Amino acid sequence: MQLATPFTRMKSSFIREILAAAQDPDVISLAGGLPDEKTFPVELLKPTIDQLTSDLNLFQYGPTQGYGQLVGHLNKRYQLPEHHKLLVTTGSQQGLDLIARAFINPGDKVVLEAPSYLGAMQVLNFVQADIVPIAQNVEGPDLNVLEQCFVRHQPKLFYAVPDFHNPTGLSWPLATRQAVAKLCLRYQVTFVEDAPYRPLRFTGDTLPMVSSFCPDQALVLRSFSKIASPGMRVGAVSGPGHWIDPLIKVKQGADLHSSLPIQAMLLGLLEHPGFEQHVANVCQLYRGRYAVLHNALKHLETFGCFTQPIEGGMFVWLTLPECDTFTLAKTLLDQGVATVPSDVFYSGQKGVSALRLNFTNSSPESLKEAVDRMADVIKLL
Amino acid sequence: MQLATPFTRMKSSFIREILAAAQDPDVISLAGGLPDEKTFPVELLKPTIDQLTSDLNLFQYGPTQGYGQLVGHLNKRYQLPEHHKLLVTTGSQQGLDLIARAFINPGDKVVLEAPSYLGAMQVLNFVQADIVPIAQNVEGPDLNVLEQCFVRHQPKLFYAVPDFHNPTGLSWPLATRQAVAKLCLRYQVTFVEDAPYRPLRFTGDTLPMVSSFCPDQALVLRSFSKIASPGMRVGAVSGPGHWIDPLIKVKQGADLHSSLPIQAMLLGLLEHPGFEQHVANVCQLYRGRYAVLHNALKHLETFGCFTQPIEGGMFVWLTLPECDTFTLAKTLLDQGVATVPSDVFYSGQKGVSALRLNFTNSSPESLKEAVDRMADVIKLL
Repeated sequence: MQLATPFTRMKSSFIREILAAAQDPDVISLAGGLPDEKTFPVELLKPTIDQLTSDLNLFQYGPTQGYGQLVGHLNKRYQLPEHHKLLVTTGSQQGLDLIARAFINPGDKVVLEAPSYLGAMQVLNFVQADIVPIAQNVEGPDLNVLEQCFVRHQPKLFYAVPDFHNPTGLSWPLATRQAVAKLCLRYQVTFVEDAPYRPLRFTGDTLPMVSSFCPDQALVLRSFSKIASPGMRVGAVSGPGHWIDPLIKVKQGADLHSSLPIQAMLLGLLEHPGFEQHVANVCQLYRGRYAVLHNALKHLETFGCFTQPIEGGMFVWLTLPECDTFTLAKTLLDQGVATVPSDVFYSGQKGVSALRLNFTNSSPESLKEAVDRMADVIKLL
Repeated sequence: MQLATPFTRMKSSFIREILAAAQDPDVISLAGGLPDEKTFPVELLKPTIDQLTSDLNLFQYGPTQGYGQLVGHLNKRYQLPEHHKLLVTTGSQQGLDLIARAFINPGDKVVLEAPSYLGAMQVLNFVQADIVPIAQNVEGPDLNVLEQCFVRHQPKLFYAVPDFHNPTGLSWPLATRQAVAKLCLRYQVTFVEDAPYRPLRFTGDTLPMVSSFCPDQALVLRSFSKIASPGMRVGAVSGPGHWIDPLIKVKQGADLHSSLPIQAMLLGLLEHPGFEQHVANVCQLYRGRYAVLHNALKHLETFGCFTQPIEGGMFVWLTLPECDTFTLAKTLLDQGVATVPSDVFYSGQKGVSALRLNFTNSSPESLKEAVDRMADVIKLL
């Protein structure tokens, strides 16, 4: 049986090969995007889990939009306006997939930061979108280039991660946020704001979301994978009701609805009085690890490497002297460090030479040791 | 923002309107496809739920294919051959959606029984399949017509529910199973065997699955919604590894993986020594309700109605004197009985006049009362 056309656009995932190799206990993995298991708030989940079987309705078919009480809680938490809706999804990844399926025809233009989140490229390739890359600078996209891009391509969507970007860790300053929202409004481009790392700020002030400046021209993807648990697979997508309704219809065909007991577990966690402190603890843990990695990476500056400081999230982007990053990543793996080479985060075009380094799932000692191992290879570049 | 092309093929769901109206406490609903909440095996789930937080790996990202121990358990339970694979899905609905996305291009032919499961039509319409209906008789499809259909249309898939069909409740006899498998092998049509009701047999002998006669030409969809809990949303799809691998790739983009704690809960249930007895209890409960409904419906025979006896599942198909079944269903709703009119189960063509009646979620008294109310309307047809 022949595969459907979109498969011709799917590449085998290099990141999977690396993650597989990173299982080796002798390898220090900075390649994944995993939270630290020890942060999972199982103690805060317990009271809800203990009560789970007392509500039989959680085990029955439920509404596609999500468990009513969780939807209500999230509406309030995110202060959604009356005419907006929220749909609970199986992770924010599903939210993005639903957006792509509901709105993108083959050949429709979608603007993506370059580099960009791999999972977004995968989903957009599968619906055969025409991806238009826009270079990501330290302050986000160049606004003139973005405007030209909007004028020239009339894209349907602009997908971005303005807070603690994957893979670069960077955040857009306030001025960029306001300006991008203005451009999206002017050119009627829907802004898809993916915000999985937003709660993981460990320094500096929280900035308003881009979508807060163009609420009726935006769809927002939320994840609970970084502050609760990725294995539970609960996310949400919100925006104007007339854009969420089609997503609900697609989701109905896709899986009827997401698991209800899990949604109830998440609600119990979010309502637990200890939840805010839990998030603060996670941020503090990651701040410490980031500091260790950042300091260690300074030693690589003599070899022409550089990292832009970040204020939160899970990743550091180490730019390198120009090189074949795939080959470098393989050599590093042989030396016992798993990293992700920058090339995988670009769609087609050649990007800057860099490595994505994750610091949330390694001890300070491992982070230092990893950089020592990297130095041995990179000094030879 | 304009919707993607598949939306032009999506009809508003009449069944949703009926289900909404059926919330009225004065209405007896035979319209849904809900198991009885009281059958949910929460006591058998408790031991696993109590242990859930002791395994932090359940809360971390996991493999797209599913929780390893559950995959292993299901491989054994279904005695899958070495070269087959199983993928855990968010309900069997997702399995079907993944098959459609991975294998169907717009215009590809897919054979569907007429009448057929609504959710299958929805999914296949969304990938813009060209649906070729084949009439479902008491013994399944007419084999000559099916062969002509295979020759003429060279379909990619034949999707069917051979055990306790939705909406008709009928099952294919052994000879039909063997013959359909033979035709699928001869004409290289992939048989998609949807088996959600298969464990709900309350009389007669279990028959081999169609796919057991053509294992390498079939994909099998399994559901735990009817014997465990629909709200948990766990199903599985299995078949030759080279067909499951593309499904895993599509699922990776769709939601990374299904919720892990829920998969662990299902595993604990399936391994519980009380599980087989639980399924037997469910079947016994439903057998009793079916008997009540079947006997009550006999009184409608004087008005030209007829039901074929069934051996399991959740639905009875009441054929009627030719009429506008939508109008009839609306009139019945006004009289306090929710049913689903046959027309919604046909794709395009006009089908037989009938009603789908569910008996698993109403008490014997309600079932009798519902038929009394129906009689008052149907006698006027």
